[in-house]
Formats: sequence, C-alpha cells, structure tokens
Amino acid sequence: TVGRALDNAPPRVDATGASHGASRVRVAVPSRRSRPRARIASVRRGRTERKARRPIRSLQHNTVVRPRARRSARGDSRRTMATDDHMKVEHIGLPDGATSASLGDYLLENGRVVRDVVLGYTAYGELNASGDNAIVVGHSLTSNSNVTEWWGAMCGPGEQFALNTLEDFVICVNYLGSPYGSSAPTTADPDKADGGCYGADFPTPVSIRDNVRLQKMLLDSLGVKHLKMAIGGSMGSMLALEWAATFPDFVEELCLIAGCGRHTDWAIGIGEAQRFSIMADGKFKGGSYDVNDPPKAGLATSRMMAMLSYRAPASVDQKFERTVTMNSKTGAAAPMAKPSSHVDLNNVVAHANEKAQSLPYFAVESYLQYQGKKFIRRFDANCYIQLTYTLDSHDVARGRGEYRDVLRSLRHRVLVVGITSDVLYPFALQRELAREMPHSELYAIDSPHGHDAFLIEIASLNVAVTRWRNGEPATLGKLRWKAPEEETRASSEDVGELQAAVRELEEDLARAREMEG
Amino acid sequence: TVGRALDNAPPRVDATGASHGASRVRVAVPSRRSRPRARIASVRRGRTERKARRPIRSLQHNTVVRPRARRSARGDSRRTMATDDHMKVEHIGLPDGATSASLGDYLLENGRVVRDVVLGYTAYGELNASGDNAIVVGHSLTSNSNVTEWWGAMCGPGEQFALNTLEDFVICVNYLGSPYGSSAPTTADPDKADGGCYGADFPTPVSIRDNVRLQKMLLDSLGVKHLKMAIGGSMGSMLALEWAATFPDFVEELCLIAGCGRHTDWAIGIGEAQRFSIMADGKFKGGSYDVNDPPKAGLATSRMMAMLSYRAPASVDQKFERTVTMNSKTGAAAPMAKPSSHVDLNNVVAHANEKAQSLPYFAVESYLQYQGKKFIRRFDANCYIQLTYTLDSHDVARGRGEYRDVLRSLRHRVLVVGITSDVLYPFALQRELAREMPHSELYAIDSPHGHDAFLIEIASLNVAVTRWRNGEPATLGKLRWKAPEEETRASSEDVGELQAAVRELEEDLARAREMEG
Repeated sequence: TVGRALDNAPPRVDATGASHGASRVRVAVPSRRSRPRARIASVRRGRTERKARRPIRSLQHNTVVRPRARRSARGDSRRTMATDDHMKVEHIGLPDGATSASLGDYLLENGRVVRDVVLGYTAYGELNASGDNAIVVGHSLTSNSNVTEWWGAMCGPGEQFALNTLEDFVICVNYLGSPYGSSAPTTADPDKADGGCYGADFPTPVSIRDNVRLQKMLLDSLGVKHLKMAIGGSMGSMLALEWAATFPDFVEELCLIAGCGRHTDWAIGIGEAQRFSIMADGKFKGGSYDVNDPPKAGLATSRMMAMLSYRAPASVDQKFERTVTMNSKTGAAAPMAKPSSHVDLNNVVAHANEKAQSLPYFAVESYLQYQGKKFIRRFDANCYIQLTYTLDSHDVARGRGEYRDVLRSLRHRVLVVGITSDVLYPFALQRELAREMPHSELYAIDSPHGHDAFLIEIASLNVAVTRWRNGEPATLGKLRWKAPEEETRASSEDVGELQAAVRELEEDLARAREMEG
Repeated sequence: TVGRALDNAPPRVDATGASHGASRVRVAVPSRRSRPRARIASVRRGRTERKARRPIRSLQHNTVVRPRARRSARGDSRRTMATDDHMKVEHIGLPDGATSASLGDYLLENGRVVRDVVLGYTAYGELNASGDNAIVVGHSLTSNSNVTEWWGAMCGPGEQFALNTLEDFVICVNYLGSPYGSSAPTTADPDKADGGCYGADFPTPVSIRDNVRLQKMLLDSLGVKHLKMAIGGSMGSMLALEWAATFPDFVEELCLIAGCGRHTDWAIGIGEAQRFSIMADGKFKGGSYDVNDPPKAGLATSRMMAMLSYRAPASVDQKFERTVTMNSKTGAAAPMAKPSSHVDLNNVVAHANEKAQSLPYFAVESYLQYQGKKFIRRFDANCYIQLTYTLDSHDVARGRGEYRDVLRSLRHRVLVVGITSDVLYPFALQRELAREMPHSELYAIDSPHGHDAFLIEIASLNVAVTRWRNGEPATLGKLRWKAPEEETRASSEDVGELQAAVRELEEDLARAREMEG
C-alpha cells in the first residue's frame, strides 16, 4: 500500500508491505574505480554493508564505467570554468564512482507514484560508528552526483577542504528526473511491458521536497543518524534548505549558496522560455520523441539561454569584447563565416540566403552554439523540462505557513552565500534568507561572473565555508561586502544621509571651534 | 552607378545618375487621419511640399488605415505598460498617420544594394522656414514610427512636452528591415519578377549607420537643414548616437536613453539565443518560410526571452508573487490547467502526457505565452532576425578609431539616461557614455522595472528631458540618484568611509565641546 506523505515524515515506500530500511537498499558498485580520490561509501553496519559491497544490479543505461571521461582539475578552476561548461562528462547515466540504490515505490507530493525508485549517488569518506558525521551536498540543475567533478577544491581529504573526507561522510544524491543515475524520463518505465523509458510519461512534477524525502530514505538505509550539514549551490541550496524544513532535528547546520527560499517568478519565466524553446522544436512531440532523433535544436537553444542567465553581462562583455570568431585552419587566421546550417542540430538551416554567411560571426555566438551542442550530448530534453518543473515547485513555505515565519522557525546555524553580480538569483534573495533566519551569517562572493561564480570562485568559497565550519566568521575583514542590511540601491540614500550628517557635524565643529577660539 | 559610402558622407543613391534630393521623395499620405494629435508633416518648400501632399504610391502591405487600432493613453502609462506590450498595433505595415517615402537604391555598409528603398516615417509639428527645428526620434527594436503610441506623454503640443510639437518638427523613421512601413523582408523584392517579398533574401546586415544615412537622405529631401536634437531609447539611442558621429555638424544635442555606444556581447548573446529559437523552429526553413505558415512558435519563444531581459527580476517577482493562473470562466475562480498544446502556435504539443496538465500554471508562464502570441500577430520572424543583426552591428567607433576617443570627440551637449535596474543594457554602460562624452549629464531613472522603464516611467522621463532641454539640470535635487561616479557596488565603500568620517567628526566635536566646556 502506498500512503500520502505528511510533512516531516518519510513516506511509506514499500509496495510489498515491508517498511523501508537497509534491507531495501541495493547498491551497484562499478567494477572499476577510476577516480582515485573518490572513495565509494563503505557503510559499516550489518546487512547494509554486505549489500553495499555486492553489485546487485545496474540499470541498462548506466552499466558502463567510462575510463576515458575527462577528469576535473583540482584547485582554482577559474580559467577552465570561465570558458567551459562546469561538467566534463559527455554522456548521461551514472557517473564514474557513483552508486545506484533501489528504494521501492514512492508517492510524490503530486499524488502519483514512481515505481521502483532508483537513486544515483556518490559518497566520499566513511560514515562513523555513531552515524552522525554525514554531510549532504545538493548539486545544481544539470550537474551529477560527482562532487569532485564540479567542486573539486571544496571536497577532499584534509582540513583545508570545506568538505573534509577524512572526517566527513559526504554524500551527493542525483535528483529524481535527472539523467545521471536516478529514475528519470531516460530510464525504463516499469509500467511499460516493452522495457521502454518513461519519456513523457514520467510522473510530473517532482518537488524539491520529494527529493529530500527520498534522500532521507536513502540515508536511513545507509545508517546515517544525523547530518552535520546540508550544503548546496543554486538548486542544491534549495535542497539543503528543504532538508532543514522537512527534517529540522536531523540537520545540524546549513550552507545555502546562490539560491532562494522559493523559486522566483523571473526564474520561473526563464525556465518557461527555455521549456518553450524545446517544446517548439518539431522533434519534441510533446515529449514523446524518438530517443534516436531528439529535439536537439530546442535543447541547445535552452542551454544558450541558460548560460546567459548564469553569467553577469559585464563578465560576458569582458570575456569576448565584440571579437569575431577566427578560423585558424586557413593558415593566416581569418574571420570565420557564420554557419548557414547546423547539421549536428537536426539540420537547422540558419540562413537560406548564402550571402548571409558574411555576417560577422561574433565569438559569443560561436561560444553559445558550442555550449548548446555540448549540452545535448550530456542531457535529455524531457529530463531538462522535469528538473525545471522541480525548480519551479520550490517554496520552503508550501503548506507550512507564511514564508518569513517558516524561515524564522529554522533555528539551524546557517551560512548564506550570495554572489553580488548574480542575475538569476539576485543577491537580495540571499540577503532576505539571512535576514529572516535567526542564526545566519551572510557571505558575499564579490565576483563579476554572475550566478556561475559558485562554480568558478571555488577556492575562496572553500576558505569561507571552512572558516565558518570552524566557528569563525566566513567573511575576512579585508573583503568589502559584509552582509549589508539594505538594498544596494538604498546605499545611495545612505550616502546622501551620511553626507548631510558630515556637513552638519562639520558645521557644528566649526561653530564649536569658533566658540572655543 | 552605386558607390561605396564614406564615413560622414551620405552615399549616392540614385541609380539613374540624378543626385538625391527633394525630387526623389515620393510620399504617400494615408487618406484618413484617424489620430487627432498626430499631424502629418507639412513640408514648406517647393516641389517637396507638393509631392508631400499628393499620395503617390502605397505599398501593397500598407494600404490600409485601420480605424479600430487601439489608442495609447496619454499621461503616466505605468499601469498599462507594466502589464502589456508597449505596442498596441496588431498588424505589420505602415501605422496610422505615417507616411512612406521612396529613396531609390542604397548601398549598404556591407556592400550590397537595396533597390528602391522605402522608409516609413511619422512626423509631428511643422518644419520652420529655416529648416532647423527638427528632432529625430529613434524607436526601439520592435516599435514603429508612431511616437505617440509608445511615448505619448513625451510628445505633444505644449511646453510641458519634451518633444513640443508647437515648436519642434518631430520625425521618427522606421528602420530598414522593420515591418512597419520600410523596406524589409516583408516587402516586395524588386528583383523578384513575381512580386514576392524579400524574405530570406533581404540584404543583411543593415547597420545603425546605414539607417542614419538613409534618414539623412530623407531629412534632406524634406528640407531639414539642422537637427535640434537626436533622441531615442534602447535601439533608438544607438541611432541618436550614430547620428552625432556620422553627421556631427548636423546635430545640436543628443539624448541617449537606456542604450550603449556599442552592442555588448551579452546582448549579442541574448539576440543569438532568440534568433536560434526561431531558426530551430522547423517552419523557419532558413527564412524561406511560407508567409501563411510562419515559424510562430519560435518567434513567440524569442519574445518570451526578450520580455524577461526587458524586466528586472525583482519587478517580475513583485508583479506575480508566484501566483497561479486562475480560470474565471468556471464560476468560482479555480486554478487553470496548464495547456498541453498551443494550437495558435503551430500546434506545439507541450505535454503528450495528459496528467501533466495538473502542473501548476504560474501566472508568469501564462503572461509570457500571452506576450508571445500577441507578438506574432504584429511582427515577422525574418524582420526580427534582421533587426537583431542591426543591433549587433552597432559600434559607434567602427572605422573611426578607439571607442573612447570617438566618444570624446563628440562635442555635443548630451543627456545620457540610464535605468538603475536595467539588466539588458546595465547602468554602467550609460555611466561610461556620460563619463567619456565631454558635455554630458547623466540622469538615472531609479526604477525597479528594468530596461522597459524607458517605456513605463515616461512622465518623469518627460520632466527630466524637458528640464534639460531648457538648460536646467535634468536631475532635481530631491531625486536620489545624482550621476554616481562609481559602480553601485562601490557605494557601500562610500558608506564605510562616510561612517568613519562621521565617527571622527563626532569625536572631534566631543573634544571641541569638552575644551569649550
């Protein structure tokens, strides 16, 4: 039987009548561990441990460990990040070093059941005997569970890492609906006799809260008794916040980076425009597309839009400076002609007029097209749509009362991190979180890069989170931004008031000195 | 013969060998003047006048004066503007009250010739005998030449109007490539024997500079000897700036609103993502689409994206507050189901899964879809693409030297207007213009609405421009923003410094008073 989940209670999941627990966890460990730093979770208790070490099942789409996948660089990845997608994988499916767990049936908030839920996850470090050294990391919209791929400098063995795998059991779980190892439109639908994938039939929408409850079930199975911290960037910060609101006593600390307490209308709109670009691609067919002939052009367009929302305008301008794309293959470098068609995007014909090829082919255009083409190799259109619905569902106060009251009720120690140039989730949203949550510190990444700074300015983010986890202020004195209480815009009012105060004081002082004289 | 145009010299245009001039102007005046305030230009000189009063030719696509077109409201249009497209027309073609002029052949900067160029324009007021009371107004990307439709409170008879039609001869010319009366992909291609439209064969790209040169030819024909001012918002400000750089002695003053001196990479990227959404629509066919079956879905998507770039995130959030779309037709208002298909957008099937209709249908999604559907009735996909290429071409320094040197060389009196919350052309761009142009004042529209504030905050903009035209500062003392010299971000530094100054002065004062005591 499947029951409707109540707030703060994990839903019943086992259609056979057994309660959820370790016995339901089936873990598939890839046969090759090609990532030296990424230790597979070794869970030290009873049946779970035995199960964990025995590969039981790997889903059709994630059987292969790909030794040729590029490795992410450690350290400050500013240079590569500034030019590239933060993700290096070139395929969907469970990433190297990840594990997949089967959790049985799950009743979504929307009232529909996902049968035989599988979650992909990656774990680092070891769970201690008391099960209370775990940290949940939330990944961003299009990332996978492989934390070291996109947050390398944040996670490793040693106290220089904010996520110290010598002490912390760090786990990142792939979202339901994401193509990186969890049940998703790209995985087999148990209701289809022919083994076909969910595709458009994936039960939608999955909420952030659904993901938290599923992750709780997984952690219970692994023997986790308490979370030292829930941390995440962008969509991951929504997960972390929802962890605290759904299981307040299970979570100790929160680190919420470049996100919000409820998805904003502007961001819903950005998502809708992106979804519409996919839906408008004739190949999409309402999601019932041929997986061998997917809506590549629409998905590439959505990625182009997304990339721009992840970057601050000034950052893009400084990067490209109106340069045009050069063709270096032709001996002396010469401007490249604007492509008149895109064969790799389902034969999109950009210009039937051949003369139009002499249009300037700006580097930023070439860059965006490259990013679009890169993205379609590692993502799926239905998954993208589902995950943006998950973002839109996010409202930590849904069913819990007034938004601010809910934030005020969360007594956790919280580090809220915002990026001063973020267009997608502007800094004011993080300032609001910090203002309302009673035990918070607001830390600003004063970066020109916009939203993606949480995947670029990793070295300084790592220092800040490490300091804060050690009980120190995240903000060093020399940094300019120190949790301003008011809108940036209001500070010009402050300037005016203060200037007036200075004038008055100067006059008072002059008068006092006159009298003195 | 057609020669290559040189900077600052109008190109030769007459393939028959005659020099350009009044004799080449053929003006079609619509037979009904349905807009009472919009006076058709009455040009008081020789043959031009006679020609101007005799309708000679009206193109196939602009023969109809549409009496049912909605009128724009005068006064502060904040309420309507905040909810709607700023344009009320629902068709392409020459707007009510506009005139079309034939200018002969024109050699574009790109080396191609547009044959038999037609420009649509709207004029208000009368040209004086000395021909020196003209003002050119530049319209924005998707506007037409009907200034009173989108800037009603700025333009009218009386000194309360920044554009005072009792004194000024105000003229706004539709851009080449725009569907509102000028030669464009939607008009007949003289090279096609069957009378077919240009479509994808329109010679591309047309630059802002091309538009200035064409407009100069038109003004010459009308007898304009000198421009009191070139003014415009967004794309229109690019036109105004290019007017000053191309014909520096012809222009007296400049008013540059919410634009930039060269199109930025982020904005090129936004344009490219929008173009790509059109090109990815299977109906587009490289621009050679059936005009009766155009790429509606792609064009609607591009509009959805554009609308978000025109609005500041906080403005959108405050407008919608995560509300869902209500269906008021069903007696008691109930949430509306998310549409699973869009018949009016070429049968886009959004969700093949019928259950997906229970997804929350956020008001912002409904709003964007409405805007998209509204836009496809009044615009054309090829025109949209051409005009975004025109934007991308914009660089006032192209062929003229270093960007800053070119700005510094412009000795005109300039009012630069920026919007503090503009995402598309951020305030820093206008600050840069004002900093580099030697006789400039920077005026800030301190609006939460983002880029579109230049079409929303018209009443205050009108006051500022009127003051400035009268030789006063545009900025009133009580307004908060007074041309800050530094980045907004730096003002928190200012606050710190000023707070320190206050503390020091307070201490000095205390000491002085102690000594006094």
